Amino acid sequence: MESYMHKTADVSPKSKIGENCRIWHHAQIRENAELGKNCVLGKNVYIDAGVKIGSGVKIENNACVYNAEIGDDVLIGPHVTFTNDPYPRAFIWDKSRVGKKIVVKKGASIGANSTILCGVVIGEYAMVGAGSVVTKDVPAHALVYGNPAKIKGFVCICGMKSEKKQEKAGSILFECPKCRKTFEVPKEVFEK
Amino acid sequence: MESYMHKTADVSPKSKIGENCRIWHHAQIRENAELGKNCVLGKNVYIDAGVKIGSGVKIENNACVYNAEIGDDVLIGPHVTFTNDPYPRAFIWDKSRVGKKIVVKKGASIGANSTILCGVVIGEYAMVGAGSVVTKDVPAHALVYGNPAKIKGFVCICGMKSEKKQEKAGSILFECPKCRKTFEVPKEVFEK
Amino acid sequence: MESYMHKTADVSPKSKIGENCRIWHHAQIRENAELGKNCVLGKNVYIDAGVKIGSGVKIENNACVYNAEIGDDVLIGPHVTFTNDPYPRAFIWDKSRVGKKIVVKKGASIGANSTILCGVVIGEYAMVGAGSVVTKDVPAHALVYGNPAKIKGFVCICGMKSEKKQEKAGSILFECPKCRKTFEVPKEVFEK
Repeated sequence: MESYMHKTADVSPKSKIGENCRIWHHAQIRENAELGKNCVLGKNVYIDAGVKIGSGVKIENNACVYNAEIGDDVLIGPHVTFTNDPYPRAFIWDKSRVGKKIVVKKGASIGANSTILCGVVIGEYAMVGAGSVVTKDVPAHALVYGNPAKIKGFVCICGMKSEKKQEKAGSILFECPKCRKTFEVPKEVFEK
Repeated sequence: MESYMHKTADVSPKSKIGENCRIWHHAQIRENAELGKNCVLGKNVYIDAGVKIGSGVKIENNACVYNAEIGDDVLIGPHVTFTNDPYPRAFIWDKSRVGKKIVVKKGASIGANSTILCGVVIGEYAMVGAGSVVTKDVPAHALVYGNPAKIKGFVCICGMKSEKKQEKAGSILFECPKCRKTFEVPKEVFEK
Repeated sequence: MESYMHKTADVSPKSKIGENCRIWHHAQIRENAELGKNCVLGKNVYIDAGVKIGSGVKIENNACVYNAEIGDDVLIGPHVTFTNDPYPRAFIWDKSRVGKKIVVKKGASIGANSTILCGVVIGEYAMVGAGSVVTKDVPAHALVYGNPAKIKGFVCICGMKSEKKQEKAGSILFECPKCRKTFEVPKEVFEK
Protein backbone atom coordinates (compact mmCIF):
# COMPACT_ATOMS: atom_id res chain seq x y z
CA MET A 1 0.00 0.00 0.00
CA GLU A 2 1.18 3.46 -0.77
CA SER A 3 2.35 5.57 2.14
CA TYR A 4 0.15 8.39 3.40
CA MET A 5 1.69 11.79 4.02
CA HIS A 6 -0.37 14.58 5.51
CA LYS A 7 -0.38 17.64 3.29
CA THR A 8 1.48 19.66 5.94
CA ALA A 9 4.32 17.09 6.28
CA ASP A 10 7.65 18.03 4.70
CA VAL A 11 9.33 14.93 3.29
CA SER A 12 12.57 15.47 1.41
CA PRO A 13 12.55 14.06 -2.13
CA LYS A 14 16.04 12.83 -1.25
CA SER A 15 14.73 10.64 1.56
CA LYS A 16 13.58 7.04 1.09
CA ILE A 17 10.20 6.01 2.50
CA GLY A 18 8.99 2.40 2.56
CA GLU A 19 5.44 1.40 1.72
CA ASN A 20 2.41 1.64 3.98
CA CYS A 21 3.80 4.37 6.25
CA ARG A 22 1.65 7.12 7.75
CA ILE A 23 3.30 10.48 8.24
CA TRP A 24 1.24 13.04 10.12
CA HIS A 25 0.87 16.80 10.48
CA HIS A 26 4.00 18.94 10.24
CA ALA A 27 6.34 15.94 10.42
CA GLN A 28 9.64 16.55 8.67
CA ILE A 29 11.97 14.01 7.11
CA ARG A 30 15.31 15.34 5.95
CA GLU A 31 17.49 14.37 3.00
CA ASN A 32 19.08 10.91 2.97
CA ALA A 33 16.94 9.71 5.85
CA GLU A 34 15.52 6.23 5.30
CA LEU A 35 12.31 4.79 6.68
CA GLY A 36 11.25 1.13 6.32
CA LYS A 37 7.69 0.03 5.73
CA ASN A 38 4.65 0.16 8.04
CA CYS A 39 6.01 3.05 10.10
CA VAL A 40 3.93 5.75 11.78
CA LEU A 41 5.31 9.23 12.42
CA GLY A 42 3.20 11.48 14.68
CA LYS A 43 2.61 15.20 14.58
CA ASN A 44 5.67 17.41 14.32
CA VAL A 45 8.14 14.49 14.38
CA TYR A 46 11.58 15.45 13.07
CA ILE A 47 13.89 12.94 11.38
CA ASP A 48 17.30 14.42 10.78
CA ALA A 49 19.35 14.02 7.61
CA GLY A 50 20.88 10.57 7.21
CA VAL A 51 18.98 8.83 10.00
CA LYS A 52 18.18 5.17 9.19
CA ILE A 53 14.94 3.73 10.54
CA GLY A 54 13.69 0.12 10.21
CA SER A 55 10.20 -1.22 9.53
CA GLY A 56 7.23 -1.23 11.89
CA VAL A 57 8.59 1.73 13.83
CA LYS A 58 6.22 4.07 15.68
CA ILE A 59 7.46 7.58 16.48
CA GLU A 60 5.07 9.71 18.48
CA ASN A 61 4.27 13.43 18.49
CA ASN A 62 7.12 15.92 18.66
CA ALA A 63 9.93 13.36 18.93
CA CYS A 64 13.24 14.56 17.45
CA VAL A 65 15.52 11.87 16.04
CA TYR A 66 19.06 13.03 15.31
CA ASN A 67 22.20 11.06 14.77
CA ALA A 68 20.66 7.62 15.08
CA GLU A 69 20.06 4.16 13.71
CA ILE A 70 16.68 2.72 14.64
CA GLY A 71 15.91 -1.01 14.33
CA ASP A 72 12.64 -2.68 13.35
CA ASP A 73 9.60 -2.49 15.65
CA VAL A 74 11.01 0.27 17.82
CA LEU A 75 8.65 2.62 19.65
CA ILE A 76 9.76 6.20 20.35
CA GLY A 77 7.31 8.01 22.63
CA PRO A 78 6.08 11.59 22.38
CA HIS A 79 8.59 14.39 23.04
CA VAL A 80 11.58 12.02 23.07
CA THR A 81 14.76 13.93 22.21
CA PHE A 82 17.95 12.48 20.80
CA THR A 83 21.18 14.48 21.04
CA ASN A 84 24.06 14.79 18.65
CA ASP A 85 26.71 16.91 20.29
CA PRO A 86 28.43 16.00 23.55
CA TYR A 87 29.97 19.47 23.97
CA PRO A 88 27.46 21.81 22.37
CA ARG A 89 28.58 25.32 21.56
CA ALA A 90 26.72 27.62 19.19
CA PHE A 91 29.98 29.09 17.90
CA ILE A 92 31.93 25.88 17.24
CA TRP A 93 30.75 23.39 14.74
CA ASP A 94 32.85 20.85 12.95
CA LYS A 95 32.08 17.29 12.06
CA SER A 96 34.72 15.91 14.40
CA ARG A 97 32.60 17.12 17.29
CA VAL A 98 29.43 15.25 16.35
CA GLY A 99 28.76 12.64 19.00
CA LYS A 100 28.75 8.93 18.30
CA LYS A 101 25.53 7.56 16.82
CA ILE A 102 22.67 6.48 19.03
CA VAL A 103 21.59 2.92 18.21
CA VAL A 104 18.16 1.61 19.17
CA LYS A 105 17.80 -2.11 18.52
CA LYS A 106 14.88 -4.22 17.38
CA GLY A 107 11.73 -4.03 19.47
CA ALA A 108 12.96 -1.54 22.07
CA SER A 109 10.67 1.17 23.46
CA ILE A 110 11.53 4.67 24.68
CA GLY A 111 8.98 6.27 27.01
CA ALA A 112 7.51 9.75 26.63
CA ASN A 113 9.69 12.83 27.09
CA SER A 114 12.93 10.89 27.54
CA THR A 115 16.32 12.31 26.51
CA ILE A 116 18.95 10.08 24.94
CA LEU A 117 22.62 11.07 25.06
CA CYS A 118 24.80 10.51 22.04
CA GLY A 119 26.62 7.25 21.69
CA VAL A 120 24.10 5.30 23.74
CA VAL A 121 23.07 1.83 22.52
CA ILE A 122 19.61 0.68 23.59
CA GLY A 123 19.40 -3.11 23.35
CA GLU A 124 16.73 -5.38 21.82
CA TYR A 125 13.37 -5.25 23.59
CA ALA A 126 14.72 -2.89 26.22
CA MET A 127 12.28 -0.42 27.76
CA VAL A 128 13.06 3.14 28.83
CA GLY A 129 10.50 4.55 31.28
CA ALA A 130 8.86 7.92 30.65
CA GLY A 131 10.79 11.07 31.56
CA SER A 132 14.19 9.34 31.69
CA VAL A 133 17.61 10.72 30.81
CA VAL A 134 19.61 7.88 29.28
CA THR A 135 23.33 8.46 29.74
CA LYS A 136 24.71 4.97 29.14
CA ASP A 137 24.00 1.77 27.23
CA VAL A 138 20.84 -0.14 28.06
CA PRO A 139 21.19 -3.95 27.87
CA ALA A 140 18.71 -6.06 25.91
CA HIS A 141 15.40 -6.63 27.79
CA ALA A 142 16.38 -4.16 30.55
CA LEU A 143 13.82 -1.81 32.05
CA VAL A 144 15.49 1.51 32.93
CA TYR A 145 14.19 4.80 34.21
CA GLY A 146 15.09 7.93 36.16
CA ASN A 147 17.56 10.76 35.71
CA PRO A 148 20.05 9.29 35.10
CA ALA A 149 18.28 6.12 33.97
CA LYS A 150 19.19 2.97 35.92
CA ILE A 151 18.26 -0.69 35.53
CA LYS A 152 15.11 -1.45 37.55
CA GLY A 153 14.18 -4.85 36.15
CA PHE A 154 13.84 -6.87 32.95
CA VAL A 155 10.94 -7.04 30.53
CA CYS A 156 9.54 -9.59 28.12
CA ILE A 157 9.15 -9.06 24.39
CA CYS A 158 5.51 -8.28 25.19
CA GLY A 159 6.59 -5.51 27.57
CA MET A 160 5.70 -7.09 30.93
CA LYS A 161 8.18 -7.05 33.81
CA SER A 162 9.42 -10.60 34.19
CA GLU A 163 10.67 -12.70 37.08
CA LYS A 164 13.87 -14.59 37.61
CA LYS A 165 13.06 -18.23 37.03
CA GLN A 166 16.37 -20.02 37.00
CA GLU A 167 20.07 -19.42 37.37
CA LYS A 168 22.19 -20.84 34.56
CA ALA A 169 25.93 -21.01 33.95
CA GLY A 170 26.57 -17.51 32.63
CA SER A 171 23.06 -16.13 32.62
CA ILE A 172 19.73 -15.74 34.37
CA LEU A 173 16.54 -17.10 32.81
CA PHE A 174 13.49 -14.86 33.09
CA GLU A 175 9.88 -15.83 32.48
CA CYS A 176 7.04 -13.48 31.68
CA PRO A 177 4.18 -13.79 34.21
CA LYS A 178 1.68 -13.09 31.46
CA CYS A 179 2.71 -14.67 28.17
CA ARG A 180 5.18 -17.22 29.66
CA LYS A 181 7.85 -16.42 27.10
CA THR A 182 11.37 -16.71 28.46
CA PHE A 183 14.59 -14.80 27.83
CA GLU A 184 18.11 -14.80 29.22
CA VAL A 185 20.14 -11.98 30.73
CA PRO A 186 23.93 -12.34 31.12
CA LYS A 187 24.97 -12.67 34.75
CA GLU A 188 27.22 -9.62 34.64
CA VAL A 189 24.31 -7.48 33.49
CA PHE A 190 22.00 -8.88 36.18
CA GLU A 191 24.49 -8.31 38.96
CA LYS A 192 25.16 -4.67 38.10
CA MET B 1 -18.32 35.05 22.17
CA GLU B 2 -17.38 32.77 19.35
CA SER B 3 -14.20 30.76 19.73
CA TYR B 4 -11.13 31.79 17.76
CA MET B 5 -9.18 29.15 15.87
CA HIS B 6 -5.97 30.03 14.10
CA LYS B 7 -6.11 29.12 10.44
CA THR B 8 -3.35 26.54 10.89
CA ALA B 9 -5.16 24.74 13.74
CA ASP B 10 -6.76 21.39 12.90
CA VAL B 11 -9.97 20.96 14.88
CA SER B 12 -12.01 17.86 14.13
CA PRO B 13 -15.60 18.58 13.12
CA LYS B 14 -16.44 15.66 15.41
CA SER B 15 -15.02 17.47 18.47
CA LYS B 16 -17.06 19.79 20.68
CA ILE B 17 -15.64 23.23 21.48
CA GLY B 18 -17.25 25.61 24.03
CA GLU B 19 -17.56 29.31 23.44
CA ASN B 20 -14.86 31.95 23.84
CA CYS B 21 -11.90 29.57 23.42
CA ARG B 22 -8.67 30.54 21.66
CA ILE B 23 -6.89 27.82 19.75
CA TRP B 24 -3.48 28.76 18.42
CA HIS B 25 -1.08 27.78 15.63
CA HIS B 26 -0.90 24.14 14.59
CA ALA B 27 -2.95 22.98 17.56
CA GLN B 28 -4.85 19.77 16.85
CA ILE B 29 -8.06 18.56 18.47
CA ARG B 30 -9.11 15.06 17.57
CA GLU B 31 -12.56 13.52 17.09
CA ASN B 32 -14.83 13.21 20.13
CA ALA B 33 -12.62 15.45 22.22
CA GLU B 34 -14.57 17.99 24.26
CA LEU B 35 -13.45 21.41 25.41
CA GLY B 36 -15.46 23.67 27.76
CA LYS B 37 -15.64 27.43 27.41
CA ASN B 38 -12.94 30.10 27.93
CA CYS B 39 -10.06 27.71 27.24
CA VAL B 40 -6.73 28.63 25.66
CA LEU B 41 -4.69 26.10 23.67
CA GLY B 42 -1.14 27.18 22.76
CA LYS B 43 0.93 26.46 19.70
CA ASN B 44 1.15 22.85 18.58
CA VAL B 45 -0.98 21.53 21.44
CA TYR B 46 -2.39 18.05 20.77
CA ILE B 47 -5.67 16.85 22.27
CA ASP B 48 -6.23 13.18 21.59
CA ALA B 49 -9.50 11.60 20.53
CA GLY B 50 -12.06 11.37 23.32
CA VAL B 51 -10.26 13.57 25.85
CA LYS B 52 -12.69 15.62 28.00
CA ILE B 53 -11.57 19.07 29.13
CA GLY B 54 -13.46 21.49 31.41
CA SER B 55 -13.85 25.26 31.21
CA GLY B 56 -11.23 27.92 31.87
CA VAL B 57 -8.40 25.50 31.08
CA LYS B 58 -5.06 26.79 29.79
CA ILE B 59 -2.84 24.39 27.87
CA GLU B 60 0.51 25.79 26.82
CA ASN B 61 2.71 25.26 23.76
CA ASN B 62 3.48 21.72 22.63
CA ALA B 63 1.62 19.96 25.44
CA CYS B 64 0.24 16.54 24.43
CA VAL B 65 -2.89 15.41 26.22
CA TYR B 66 -3.74 11.73 25.76
CA ASN B 67 -6.02 9.50 27.72
CA ALA B 68 -7.24 12.10 30.19
CA GLU B 69 -10.05 13.92 31.89
CA ILE B 70 -9.23 17.52 32.74
CA GLY B 71 -11.30 19.54 35.25
CA ASP B 72 -12.16 23.24 35.17
CA ASP B 73 -9.46 25.88 35.65
CA VAL B 74 -6.57 23.47 35.14
CA LEU B 75 -3.25 24.77 33.83
CA ILE B 76 -1.04 22.47 31.75
CA GLY B 77 2.38 24.01 31.12
CA PRO B 78 4.40 23.95 27.91
CA HIS B 79 5.82 20.58 26.74
CA VAL B 80 3.83 18.61 29.31
CA THR B 81 3.36 15.03 28.11
CA PHE B 82 0.66 12.63 29.16
CA THR B 83 1.13 8.91 28.53
CA ASN B 84 -1.35 6.24 27.58
CA ASP B 85 0.45 2.94 27.54
CA PRO B 86 2.17 1.43 30.58
CA TYR B 87 3.99 -1.24 28.52
CA PRO B 88 4.57 0.43 25.17
CA ARG B 89 5.52 -1.78 22.25
CA ALA B 90 5.33 -0.68 18.63
CA PHE B 91 4.27 -4.15 17.53
CA ILE B 92 1.52 -4.85 20.09
CA TRP B 93 -1.55 -2.73 20.26
CA ASP B 94 -4.87 -3.73 21.64
CA LYS B 95 -7.31 -1.73 23.68
CA SER B 96 -6.84 -3.88 26.75
CA ARG B 97 -3.33 -2.48 27.04
CA VAL B 98 -4.28 1.20 27.15
CA GLY B 99 -3.39 2.54 30.58
CA LYS B 100 -5.96 3.87 33.02
CA LYS B 101 -7.09 7.44 32.43
CA ILE B 102 -5.17 10.36 33.88
CA VAL B 103 -7.48 12.62 35.87
CA VAL B 104 -6.55 16.24 36.63
CA LYS B 105 -8.98 17.87 39.02
CA LYS B 106 -10.30 21.42 39.27
CA GLY B 107 -7.75 24.17 39.61
CA ALA B 108 -4.62 22.00 39.52
CA SER B 109 -1.47 23.14 37.68
CA ILE B 110 1.19 21.06 35.92
CA GLY B 111 4.56 22.77 35.44
CA ALA B 112 6.48 22.98 32.18
CA ASN B 113 7.97 19.85 30.61
CA SER B 114 6.49 17.45 33.15
CA THR B 115 5.58 13.86 32.26
CA ILE B 116 2.46 12.24 33.69
CA LEU B 117 2.16 8.45 33.87
CA CYS B 118 -1.10 6.80 33.04
CA GLY B 119 -3.59 6.21 35.81
CA VAL B 120 -2.36 9.12 37.90
CA VAL B 121 -4.95 11.35 39.61
CA ILE B 122 -3.86 14.93 40.29
CA GLY B 123 -6.04 16.42 43.03
CA GLU B 124 -7.81 19.78 43.23
CA TYR B 125 -5.49 22.80 43.36
CA ALA B 126 -2.42 20.56 43.42
CA MET B 127 0.75 21.91 41.83
CA VAL B 128 3.33 19.89 39.90
CA GLY B 129 6.69 21.67 39.64
CA ALA B 130 8.41 22.09 36.29
CA GLY B 131 10.35 19.14 34.86
CA SER B 132 8.69 16.54 37.08
CA VAL B 133 7.87 12.92 36.34
CA VAL B 134 4.61 12.11 38.10
CA THR B 135 4.36 8.39 38.82
CA LYS B 136 1.65 8.32 41.49
CA ASP B 137 -1.42 10.20 42.66
CA VAL B 138 -0.99 13.77 43.86
CA PRO B 139 -3.28 14.75 46.77
CA ALA B 140 -5.38 17.93 46.64
CA HIS B 141 -3.35 21.10 47.39
CA ALA B 142 -0.05 19.16 47.35
CA LEU B 143 3.07 20.67 45.81
CA VAL B 144 5.14 17.92 44.18
CA TYR B 145 8.27 17.93 42.07
CA GLY B 146 11.31 15.90 41.03
CA ASN B 147 11.85 12.65 39.17
CA PRO B 148 9.94 10.84 40.55
CA ALA B 149 7.78 13.67 41.90
CA LYS B 150 7.42 13.75 45.70
CA ILE B 151 5.36 15.92 48.06
CA LYS B 152 7.37 19.01 49.07
CA GLY B 153 4.63 21.12 50.64
CA PHE B 154 1.07 22.33 50.25
CA VAL B 155 -0.25 25.26 48.25
CA CYS B 156 -3.21 27.59 48.47
CA ILE B 157 -5.84 28.00 45.77
CA CYS B 158 -3.87 31.11 44.76
CA GLY B 159 -0.74 29.00 44.28
CA MET B 160 1.34 30.14 47.28
CA LYS B 161 3.08 27.65 49.53
CA SER B 162 1.17 27.65 52.79
CA GLU B 163 2.06 27.02 56.40
CA LYS B 164 0.67 24.62 58.95
CA LYS B 165 -1.55 26.66 61.23
CA GLN B 166 -3.38 24.18 63.40
CA GLU B 167 -3.68 20.47 64.03
CA LYS B 168 -7.22 19.16 63.97
CA ALA B 169 -8.73 15.74 64.66
CA GLY B 170 -8.08 14.03 61.33
CA SER B 171 -6.47 16.85 59.42
CA ILE B 172 -4.01 19.74 59.36
CA LEU B 173 -5.21 23.27 58.71
CA PHE B 174 -3.02 25.36 56.40
CA GLU B 175 -3.14 29.11 55.93
CA CYS B 176 -1.81 31.04 52.95
CA PRO B 177 0.76 33.67 54.00
CA LYS B 178 -0.48 35.94 51.22
CA CYS B 179 -4.22 35.71 50.76
CA ARG B 180 -4.99 34.17 54.19
CA LYS B 181 -7.28 31.55 52.71
CA THR B 182 -7.21 28.27 54.61
CA PHE B 183 -7.51 24.65 53.52
CA GLU B 184 -7.25 21.27 55.19
CA VAL B 185 -5.04 18.29 54.39
CA PRO B 186 -5.86 14.83 55.81
CA LYS B 187 -3.38 13.74 58.47
CA GLU B 188 -2.37 10.61 56.61
CA VAL B 189 -1.44 12.68 53.57
CA PHE B 190 0.55 15.15 55.64
CA GLU B 191 2.49 12.44 57.46
CA LYS B 192 3.60 10.60 54.32
CA MET C 1 22.95 38.88 3.88
CA GLU C 2 19.22 38.94 4.17
CA SER C 3 17.65 36.62 6.69
CA TYR C 4 15.84 33.50 5.48
CA MET C 5 12.43 32.69 6.87
CA HIS C 6 10.66 29.49 5.93
CA LYS C 7 7.25 30.15 4.43
CA THR C 8 5.55 28.41 7.35
CA ALA C 9 7.33 30.56 9.98
CA ASP C 10 5.24 33.26 11.68
CA VAL C 11 7.39 36.28 12.40
CA SER C 12 5.63 39.31 13.87
CA PRO C 13 6.11 42.49 11.85
CA LYS C 14 6.59 44.12 15.26
CA SER C 15 9.66 41.97 16.01
CA LYS C 16 13.21 42.96 15.03
CA ILE C 17 15.35 40.41 13.19
CA GLY C 18 19.07 40.96 12.49
CA GLU C 19 20.69 40.02 9.21
CA ASN C 20 21.74 36.57 8.06
CA CYS C 21 19.39 34.63 10.35
CA ARG C 22 17.69 31.38 9.34
CA ILE C 23 14.26 30.75 10.74
CA TRP C 24 12.83 27.32 10.06
CA HIS C 25 9.47 25.57 9.72
CA HIS C 26 6.63 26.71 11.96
CA ALA C 27 8.90 28.86 14.13
CA GLN C 28 7.08 31.76 15.72
CA ILE C 29 8.52 35.09 16.84
CA ARG C 30 6.15 37.32 18.75
CA GLU C 31 5.81 41.10 18.84
CA ASN C 32 8.64 43.15 20.32
CA ALA C 33 11.01 40.18 20.37
CA GLU C 34 14.49 41.03 19.13
CA LEU C 35 16.98 38.75 17.44
CA GLY C 36 20.59 39.72 16.62
CA LYS C 37 22.37 38.61 13.47
CA ASN C 38 23.56 35.15 12.36
CA CYS C 39 21.01 33.30 14.49
CA VAL C 40 19.40 29.96 13.63
CA LEU C 41 15.94 29.04 14.91
CA GLY C 42 14.90 25.40 14.40
CA LYS C 43 11.54 23.88 13.62
CA ASN C 44 8.63 24.97 15.80
CA VAL C 45 10.77 27.25 18.00
CA TYR C 46 8.70 29.80 19.95
CA ILE C 47 10.08 33.19 20.97
CA ASP C 48 7.69 35.00 23.27
CA ALA C 49 6.79 38.68 23.09
CA GLY C 50 9.55 40.98 24.29
CA VAL C 51 12.33 38.38 24.52
CA LYS C 52 15.76 39.83 23.63
CA ILE C 53 18.26 37.54 21.89
CA GLY C 54 21.86 38.35 20.94
CA SER C 55 23.82 37.44 17.81
CA GLY C 56 25.13 34.03 16.78
CA VAL C 57 22.50 32.26 18.87
CA LYS C 58 21.33 28.78 17.89
CA ILE C 59 17.93 27.63 19.15
CA GLU C 60 17.01 24.07 18.26
CA ASN C 61 13.73 22.37 17.37
CA ASN C 62 10.71 22.93 19.62
CA ALA C 63 12.49 25.10 22.19
CA CYS C 64 10.18 27.62 23.91
CA VAL C 65 11.79 30.83 25.09
CA TYR C 66 9.64 32.91 27.44
CA ASN C 67 10.57 35.69 29.78
CA ALA C 68 14.28 35.80 28.95
CA GLU C 69 17.33 37.70 27.87
CA ILE C 70 19.75 35.65 25.78
CA GLY C 71 23.37 36.75 25.22
CA ASP C 72 25.51 36.30 22.11
CA ASP C 73 26.64 32.84 21.01
CA VAL C 74 24.23 30.98 23.25
CA LEU C 75 23.04 27.50 22.28
CA ILE C 76 19.58 26.34 23.35
CA GLY C 77 19.06 22.65 22.61
CA PRO C 78 15.94 20.98 21.24
CA HIS C 79 12.84 20.85 23.48
CA VAL C 80 14.33 23.24 26.05
CA THR C 81 11.55 24.98 27.98
CA PHE C 82 11.76 28.26 29.82
CA THR C 83 9.15 29.13 32.43
CA ASN C 84 7.57 32.43 33.33
CA ASP C 85 5.30 31.88 36.28
CA PRO C 86 6.52 30.58 39.64
CA TYR C 87 2.97 29.91 40.93
CA PRO C 88 1.03 29.02 37.80
CA ARG C 89 -2.74 29.05 38.01
CA ALA C 90 -5.01 29.08 34.98
CA PHE C 91 -7.51 31.33 36.75
CA ILE C 92 -5.15 33.98 38.13
CA TRP C 93 -3.10 36.13 35.86
CA ASP C 94 -1.70 39.51 36.65
CA LYS C 95 1.62 40.96 35.70
CA SER C 96 2.82 41.08 39.30
CA ARG C 97 2.92 37.28 39.23
CA VAL C 98 5.22 36.93 36.25
CA GLY C 99 8.47 35.41 37.44
CA LYS C 100 11.80 37.22 37.26
CA LYS C 101 13.52 37.09 33.88
CA ILE C 102 15.80 34.21 32.95
CA VAL C 103 19.20 35.48 31.82
CA VAL C 104 21.52 33.33 29.71
CA LYS C 105 24.93 34.93 29.28
CA LYS C 106 27.37 34.92 26.38
CA GLY C 107 28.49 31.57 25.06
CA ALA C 108 26.46 29.38 27.43
CA SER C 109 24.83 26.14 26.23
CA ILE C 110 21.64 24.48 27.43
CA GLY C 111 21.32 20.77 26.64
CA ALA C 112 18.33 19.09 25.01
CA ASN C 113 15.02 18.85 26.86
CA SER C 114 16.14 20.91 29.85
CA THR C 115 13.71 23.04 31.87
CA ILE C 116 14.77 26.43 33.21
CA LEU C 117 12.94 27.98 36.17
CA CYS C 118 12.19 31.66 36.18
CA GLY C 119 14.71 34.03 37.66
CA VAL C 120 17.67 31.75 36.95
CA VAL C 121 20.89 33.32 35.62
CA ILE C 122 23.10 31.03 33.53
CA GLY C 123 26.64 32.41 33.46
CA GLU C 124 29.07 32.90 30.57
CA TYR C 125 30.21 29.69 28.89
CA ALA C 126 28.30 27.57 31.38
CA MET C 127 26.96 24.24 30.17
CA VAL C 128 23.68 22.62 31.20
CA GLY C 129 23.59 18.88 30.48
CA ALA C 130 20.68 17.34 28.58
CA GLY C 131 17.48 16.60 30.48
CA SER C 132 18.27 18.91 33.40
CA VAL C 133 15.91 20.96 35.55
CA VAL C 134 17.71 24.18 36.43
CA THR C 135 16.35 25.63 39.67
CA LYS C 136 19.12 28.04 40.66
CA ASP C 137 21.84 30.20 39.15
CA VAL C 138 24.63 28.52 37.22
CA PRO C 139 28.06 30.16 37.63
CA ALA C 140 30.19 31.05 34.60
CA HIS C 141 32.01 28.01 33.09
CA ALA C 142 30.11 25.57 35.35
CA LEU C 143 28.90 22.23 34.02
CA VAL C 144 25.60 21.33 35.68
CA TYR C 145 23.14 18.52 35.18
CA GLY C 146 20.46 16.43 36.85
CA ASN C 147 17.06 17.14 38.39
CA PRO C 148 17.68 19.46 40.14
CA ALA C 149 20.82 20.44 38.23
CA LYS C 150 24.02 20.50 40.33
CA ILE C 151 27.59 21.56 39.57
CA LYS C 152 29.57 18.55 38.26
CA GLY C 153 32.66 20.31 36.91
CA PHE C 154 33.86 23.27 34.89
CA VAL C 155 34.16 23.63 31.13
CA CYS C 156 36.33 25.61 28.75
CA ILE C 157 35.04 28.11 26.21
CA CYS C 158 35.42 25.25 23.69
CA GLY C 159 33.09 23.06 25.79
CA MET C 160 35.61 20.53 27.17
CA LYS C 161 35.64 19.63 30.84
CA SER C 162 38.75 21.21 32.31
CA GLU C 163 41.10 20.38 35.13
CA LYS C 164 42.21 22.36 38.17
CA LYS C 165 45.69 23.61 37.40
CA GLN C 166 46.55 26.03 40.14
CA GLU C 167 45.14 27.52 43.32
CA LYS C 168 45.27 31.30 43.43
CA ALA C 169 44.34 33.84 46.12
CA GLY C 170 40.58 33.98 45.64
CA SER C 171 40.16 31.65 42.70
CA ILE C 172 41.05 28.38 41.04
CA LEU C 173 42.75 28.32 37.64
CA PHE C 174 41.47 25.70 35.21
CA GLU C 175 43.14 24.56 31.99
CA CYS C 176 41.45 22.85 29.09
CA PRO C 177 43.06 19.48 28.29
CA LYS C 178 42.36 20.01 24.61
CA CYS C 179 42.81 23.65 23.60
CA ARG C 180 44.93 24.68 26.62
CA LYS C 181 42.90 27.82 27.22
CA THR C 182 42.62 28.76 30.89
CA PHE C 183 39.88 30.33 32.98
CA GLU C 184 39.33 31.16 36.63
CA VAL C 185 36.54 30.13 38.97
CA PRO C 186 36.02 31.99 42.28
CA LYS C 187 36.95 29.87 45.29
CA GLU C 188 33.51 30.10 46.85
CA VAL C 189 31.95 28.70 43.67
CA PHE C 190 34.47 25.86 43.49
CA GLU C 191 33.99 24.86 47.10
CA LYS C 192 30.20 24.63 46.90
